[in-house]
Amino acid sequence: MEKQEFPSFNDIRFAAVRIKSFIHNTPILTSSAINELAGCELFFKCENFQKVGAFKARGAANSVMKLSDEQKKKGVATHSSGNHAAALARAASVAGIPSYIVMPSNAPEIKKKAVKGYGGKIIECKPTLKARETNLEKVVNETGATFIPPYDYMDVIEGQATCALEFLEAQDNLEVLMAPVGGGGLLGGTALLSHYWDPEIEVYGAEPKGADDAYQSFKAGRLIPQTNPNTIADGLLTSLGELNFEIIQKYVKDILLASDDEIVSAMRLIYERMKIIIEPSCAVPLAALLANKSKFQGKKVGIILSGGNVDLEKLPF
Amino acid sequence: MEKQEFPSFNDIRFAAVRIKSFIHNTPILTSSAINELAGCELFFKCENFQKVGAFKARGAANSVMKLSDEQKKKGVATHSSGNHAAALARAASVAGIPSYIVMPSNAPEIKKKAVKGYGGKIIECKPTLKARETNLEKVVNETGATFIPPYDYMDVIEGQATCALEFLEAQDNLEVLMAPVGGGGLLGGTALLSHYWDPEIEVYGAEPKGADDAYQSFKAGRLIPQTNPNTIADGLLTSLGELNFEIIQKYVKDILLASDDEIVSAMRLIYERMKIIIEPSCAVPLAALLANKSKFQGKKVGIILSGGNVDLEKLPF
Repeated sequence: MEKQEFPSFNDIRFAAVRIKSFIHNTPILTSSAINELAGCELFFKCENFQKVGAFKARGAANSVMKLSDEQKKKGVATHSSGNHAAALARAASVAGIPSYIVMPSNAPEIKKKAVKGYGGKIIECKPTLKARETNLEKVVNETGATFIPPYDYMDVIEGQATCALEFLEAQDNLEVLMAPVGGGGLLGGTALLSHYWDPEIEVYGAEPKGADDAYQSFKAGRLIPQTNPNTIADGLLTSLGELNFEIIQKYVKDILLASDDEIVSAMRLIYERMKIIIEPSCAVPLAALLANKSKFQGKKVGIILSGGNVDLEKLPF
Repeated sequence: MEKQEFPSFNDIRFAAVRIKSFIHNTPILTSSAINELAGCELFFKCENFQKVGAFKARGAANSVMKLSDEQKKKGVATHSSGNHAAALARAASVAGIPSYIVMPSNAPEIKKKAVKGYGGKIIECKPTLKARETNLEKVVNETGATFIPPYDYMDVIEGQATCALEFLEAQDNLEVLMAPVGGGGLLGGTALLSHYWDPEIEVYGAEPKGADDAYQSFKAGRLIPQTNPNTIADGLLTSLGELNFEIIQKYVKDILLASDDEIVSAMRLIYERMKIIIEPSCAVPLAALLANKSKFQGKKVGIILSGGNVDLEKLPF
């Protein structure tokens, strides 16, 4: 495959305009109690308040809106059991085009309901990667729909990068940005945009110890796939994407880890002090920061709160 | 007692300036999913994000900052087991003056901890109103501290009114404002300010069916004290205050009721759709609105979300 160019600063600014009316410019919240505990000044960009409850709305909207009229007619397709499924179904619905979502038969009912609610057509398959890929290929062949992958895809990365753009436009003098890393769409987009905005801004990824493939890959300098992930941060189980890894290697300062205990504590801190609902994956950056306080003393740190889709009946406290 | 004047529009505007640096100008959030369900356009003023997690920070700050230097030296006192206790201790701490909080011995540990955290001096007493009043009188006599009541007090009402002022300044064309009613500090302040801003704005109180003394009083045209309240909305158990009733009679259009089932459903809706944490009392206006949809069809409705202090281990879902 031909080497693809990363989105430029202007590409990302155009993306922000392209998706502006389809997403929220999410608020930035602060907590003096958490600042005191952390010993630095924290700003939280609340993508848990984003459409579909996660930053994924950005990349999906950008990818759909960039399709040609010809492509749009045939719709979009993906395989996912998570937030990308709902985000893509919603983006397609807003654009008035069909979406085909291959979902494993054991996907949670609530996720299926969200996709159906946005008018997405669900294709159920066996819960294996092989079955997901085969079914996706079949759907794409039959319908001519465009496959929109969840993170390893330029238009998705470009869309996720608009979050850091909004953040830096709204909040002056941030010295550090932190985002969780799973597939690397959000972290990649954040690192790319921050580099364009001001290369002095330090971008950190945060990852659960129980699914630390990005950390391992970053340290080794080559992509090491995730095997047997085991963490409460169920949005970060996936392996880092190739394009994402390339950006992260170039523009991310470091990847910091947090244990599940630290993740649950940080999650609870955000619930109690900030009065907002986040999913466990979303607490990983604060957890990693609190586990590495000395790095951030006195700094102005922006944390992207990635999403708020959590089963309220299964809170870990 | 001499008849007291209600705060004027200018009094409330001065109060907003007085407390500006001690409180948050809280954000306003919306949810298209809840709008669709309600059949009207809703705007939520998030006082759950306020200092001490509730609007009570406003009235306490205003009351403390209005004291003379002489009064300040001797500090402030109150009896409370709820948000007013923490709010007053915090306001005193910010002003650098002592606070004496009479609390029943059975008050939750977490409430005592909050008061202590702000440097408040706790005086424990038996859990009866008599014991609370006797102990408060004793403290006031011994220290010369000024008693700041939780709601039936002009400076507190004036402070709570700043919430509606911020709301109407930030959000154009609101036709309806709704607030929960317990003692009536928030509803009284909201009704007063709305009247000054634009008498066409309809102000509704919302009350749990299991503690409906404001509703009963409003209908009867005389103050009927609350007896044996029984509701999940534990911030609204108290009886309406006298000053508060006077304002409410004059400037509130109606008081609407919600059952505990309706309150829990509305609370869950806000958690799931808006991704924010609120206490049960805070869900009462949305619950009452959804139980009376036809009154609000197509209107622009502002709801004050009063607070977010809830025990996460005891959520009703």
